[in-house]
Amino acid sequence: MVGAGLIGGSLVRAADKAGREVWAATASEDTAAQARADGFDVTTDTGGALRRAAAEDALVVLATPLPALPDVLRQVDASASGCRLTDAVSVKGAVAEAVARYAPRARYVGGHPMAGTAESGWAAGYAGLFTGAAWVVGAEDGTDREVWADVAELAWACGAHVVPATADEHDLAVARVSHLPHLLAAVLASTAAGVGLPDDDPGLPMALAASSFADGTRVAGTRPELVLAMCDGNRPALLAAVDEALGRLGVMRGALASTGGLAATVNAGYEGRQRWAAARNEPGTRITGDEPWAELRAIGRAGTPVLGWDH
Amino acid sequence: MVGAGLIGGSLVRAADKAGREVWAATASEDTAAQARADGFDVTTDTGGALRRAAAEDALVVLATPLPALPDVLRQVDASASGCRLTDAVSVKGAVAEAVARYAPRARYVGGHPMAGTAESGWAAGYAGLFTGAAWVVGAEDGTDREVWADVAELAWACGAHVVPATADEHDLAVARVSHLPHLLAAVLASTAAGVGLPDDDPGLPMALAASSFADGTRVAGTRPELVLAMCDGNRPALLAAVDEALGRLGVMRGALASTGGLAATVNAGYEGRQRWAAARNEPGTRITGDEPWAELRAIGRAGTPVLGWDH
Repeated sequence: MVGAGLIGGSLVRAADKAGREVWAATASEDTAAQARADGFDVTTDTGGALRRAAAEDALVVLATPLPALPDVLRQVDASASGCRLTDAVSVKGAVAEAVARYAPRARYVGGHPMAGTAESGWAAGYAGLFTGAAWVVGAEDGTDREVWADVAELAWACGAHVVPATADEHDLAVARVSHLPHLLAAVLASTAAGVGLPDDDPGLPMALAASSFADGTRVAGTRPELVLAMCDGNRPALLAAVDEALGRLGVMRGALASTGGLAATVNAGYEGRQRWAAARNEPGTRITGDEPWAELRAIGRAGTPVLGWDH
Repeated sequence: MVGAGLIGGSLVRAADKAGREVWAATASEDTAAQARADGFDVTTDTGGALRRAAAEDALVVLATPLPALPDVLRQVDASASGCRLTDAVSVKGAVAEAVARYAPRARYVGGHPMAGTAESGWAAGYAGLFTGAAWVVGAEDGTDREVWADVAELAWACGAHVVPATADEHDLAVARVSHLPHLLAAVLASTAAGVGLPDDDPGLPMALAASSFADGTRVAGTRPELVLAMCDGNRPALLAAVDEALGRLGVMRGALASTGGLAATVNAGYEGRQRWAAARNEPGTRITGDEPWAELRAIGRAGTPVLGWDH
């Protein structure tokens, strides 16, 4: 594991709990000390950790913010050039490009466990973070089947289910369900609190803000640099999602200003939420792992969780 | 209590638990039967319940959706014309107008406990719903001090704290912290789920939707007619909030499309969320109840919770 923040730190704990041998590298002395105090094998010597991975043919998992990847990938290329490689970064196209550029010999299969909290850092992590979560595993034509199986088995070992998808499919989907929520939460929080207004007096609205505000803005409490890193890495897809949201907001604004009603907006929102609730009940399927990539992608596009192998 | 849904039903339980004598009327036979089975004094005879309130000089609390108010207020005027009257409806200007029109002899002081869940109906209610919640109590010049004290004491008995404000101040604030969150949640849910799109295939995004989507759209699961009733009753204030949000979104969209960054948007959202967190730590104050209304309103505008009397 490279990176031992919320995601990397939770992966270390979850993989360890599942009986895997796991070691991690972090750039932070503090983080390494905390993790060692908790009984885990965590170093600040990233090169050494990578050489050990090369020697043991281990799966290398990158769990750093996107902006740190070029440096990390240069180290991968220097110390473990042909390694099995995946990541847990929240965009896939930008990571694939960085791997192709900085560590082109790695056997890379993209990954993204869809789990997180508004917290960050080693101390915020826990082994159960991935329980029941979706974990996207890259399914482009020509993907390395052996590494794909490694990543899928890691996901299952951590309690997650696998969703096969291409980098583009992933990035379009997370723009809508993850990055857009962060930006709308930021707009809601700043509007409600009147941030930046000249006659800025948020006392009364903040005193009256209850659960609709609290839930709607929860992710606005995420460390800004983490939000910026993931949104900046997914600009084209995010721009399309933002434009669609703006279009829907414009229609709603028109309805509110005219004698027409808000029913279309509110009903569509209710329908969207029902679709999500229905998706929670998807029973899931099992695979052999020999399916053509197009078949695995079709499973992902249908939103069907892959629960394990049926060899 | 007139109305025994989530709010009215929770008020009945909370007031009962605080040792108050409480009886309620509901238009629904089912609701009345459920509430009676739970041991509460609930009837479908609204006129009878109101006559009893008039005879005992009880405080009448209206906890129905806004569209039901004209009918209910006509019954108040017919059966308890000069009663002590308050409400728990989520807009205040529209309720005050309806009272002035349909029950002008009532001794009305507006109220709004800022609590709710995405659930509705008697069964979803519970006595603890108002614990720690803000409860707006109308503080216009010339407000009836005796009824104001009744409403404040009910709020404290239910575990809430009082926030004095005018109807206009309330409506502007809740447009930002309650109604706007509902509309943004609806836009987010419909965008993410692709509701109404021709090539509508929400399988993958819905499978990947995790906590940022779940929290950001929670209130989109509210019964649409309840959302419509509260938003339609607060159009002018809500339109201003929507326009401000649209302005901020437009700036964000521009930053995303250009080489500029999203930092301003994300940082402002973080700042808004921090303001809300800081407001949770407001220590609160006590009042004599003899303060001029302007002084009480200043306490509300500062966001200071009023915790009780200091006679």
